[in-house]
Amino acid sequence: MNILIVYAHPEPKSLNGSLKDFAVQHLQNAGHTVQVSDLYAMNWKPQVDAMDNTAWSGDMPFNPSLESKNAFEAGTQSADIAAEQEKLLNADAVIFQFPLWWFSMPAIMKGWVERVYAYGFGYGVGEHSDTHWGDRYGEGRMAGKRAMLVTTMGGWEPHYSERGINGPLEDLLFPIQHGVLHYPGFDVLPPLAFYRTGKTDETRFAQLCQAYAERLDNLWNTSPIPFRKQNAGDYAIPSLTLKDEIAPGEVGFAAHLNK
Amino acid sequence: MNILIVYAHPEPKSLNGSLKDFAVQHLQNAGHTVQVSDLYAMNWKPQVDAMDNTAWSGDMPFNPSLESKNAFEAGTQSADIAAEQEKLLNADAVIFQFPLWWFSMPAIMKGWVERVYAYGFGYGVGEHSDTHWGDRYGEGRMAGKRAMLVTTMGGWEPHYSERGINGPLEDLLFPIQHGVLHYPGFDVLPPLAFYRTGKTDETRFAQLCQAYAERLDNLWNTSPIPFRKQNAGDYAIPSLTLKDEIAPGEVGFAAHLNK
Repeated sequence: MNILIVYAHPEPKSLNGSLKDFAVQHLQNAGHTVQVSDLYAMNWKPQVDAMDNTAWSGDMPFNPSLESKNAFEAGTQSADIAAEQEKLLNADAVIFQFPLWWFSMPAIMKGWVERVYAYGFGYGVGEHSDTHWGDRYGEGRMAGKRAMLVTTMGGWEPHYSERGINGPLEDLLFPIQHGVLHYPGFDVLPPLAFYRTGKTDETRFAQLCQAYAERLDNLWNTSPIPFRKQNAGDYAIPSLTLKDEIAPGEVGFAAHLNK
Repeated sequence: MNILIVYAHPEPKSLNGSLKDFAVQHLQNAGHTVQVSDLYAMNWKPQVDAMDNTAWSGDMPFNPSLESKNAFEAGTQSADIAAEQEKLLNADAVIFQFPLWWFSMPAIMKGWVERVYAYGFGYGVGEHSDTHWGDRYGEGRMAGKRAMLVTTMGGWEPHYSERGINGPLEDLLFPIQHGVLHYPGFDVLPPLAFYRTGKTDETRFAQLCQAYAERLDNLWNTSPIPFRKQNAGDYAIPSLTLKDEIAPGEVGFAAHLNK
């Protein structure tokens, strides 16, 4: 299989760097083809701007969404964006590995999402009307591919538990897992979270690698998070609210799971 | 009062740019002193790296948290970081204005948080032991200051409602409002959200400005979101889980509100 690892940490010799190296080796040993987008090493430009369309005219105020559409359609996207889209299209599974900074992905990775997910590629896909609100949330260009977050935290596991002060990890990750991954069609696997990574000795590192290896070995037989599909009948359109008879009375993120 | 607006949009002539200009003018007309951190105009560096400590030796692998601490303590932070910290310390209220991109703040603003919130400034403040887990979540250097998010969305309001497909806006913003703003001590005001901003004519723009003005006029008499304080007795330490008798049986983000 073709596996893409999108990875963000500024230090190759960090725990994250070592875990990423381990994952690459482990996947290659299992016969997979691995590509790595090492965002810091690539000096990835995080900020969306007019330079993302190489044919930007400058005649009108810069509209990020419109110029993204224009550039994607005309084939005038910045080369770094087009290259990442190609990697995504070639991948059977995508792993996003990063330290959890301020309860989300590092800025450089957020900027990867914002720039690579062009209008027409990551969103704005399919018919948009009052009866069909695009191919998204379970449909889209990433349909049939799998994605998984792998993230490290200094904090303790109970801090991220259902009554932990930071909020439950699954809810903190919902904007990414549902909003960034399910949105363009990925099947999203449960995340792999490593807690208390501030001090990781060799014994603990070996444990982390083993946990990582198990998840990599089971990429194709782990059940995805059962996020509801937008266009499978659960949602009213165009309000895009759950129909009354679906998960009656339930509100919040959990209502979007088809348990 | 001193008000800081941290603002992120690449186009000055955008709706966001116009709203920001309106807010500055409105606040100044009311006699406030306004500072603006216009992140795109400042060419803000989004990514954390070793350059953030001007005294970085390069002798050891770069540890973002440790070097942040070293630089903050030694006064060797990059000048752009120190300048933003100074603005925060001088502010009575801070407004973060941005388009909601992929259900969070733009990468350039996330990078502002990651770099400006140094160890010793945004986190790592106060005693850290098994009986006191830092001055955070209601305490910290921003205690006594107010913060508010102002964000624009292309999507419709029902899409962000309690049963809307994107998830409720208040939950999508929890990682920012609780994890980024309440964490260093801000009193966090309810967000100001503008929906369906893809096409905004003059009539609608005037309505948005009026709504913005009302929120600005009431910065000091709007009740903050009642997030629980970490060190006020609701949480067991060091597990940092809600004590059994606090919001018994409740889980998730809402359990951290002292309603």
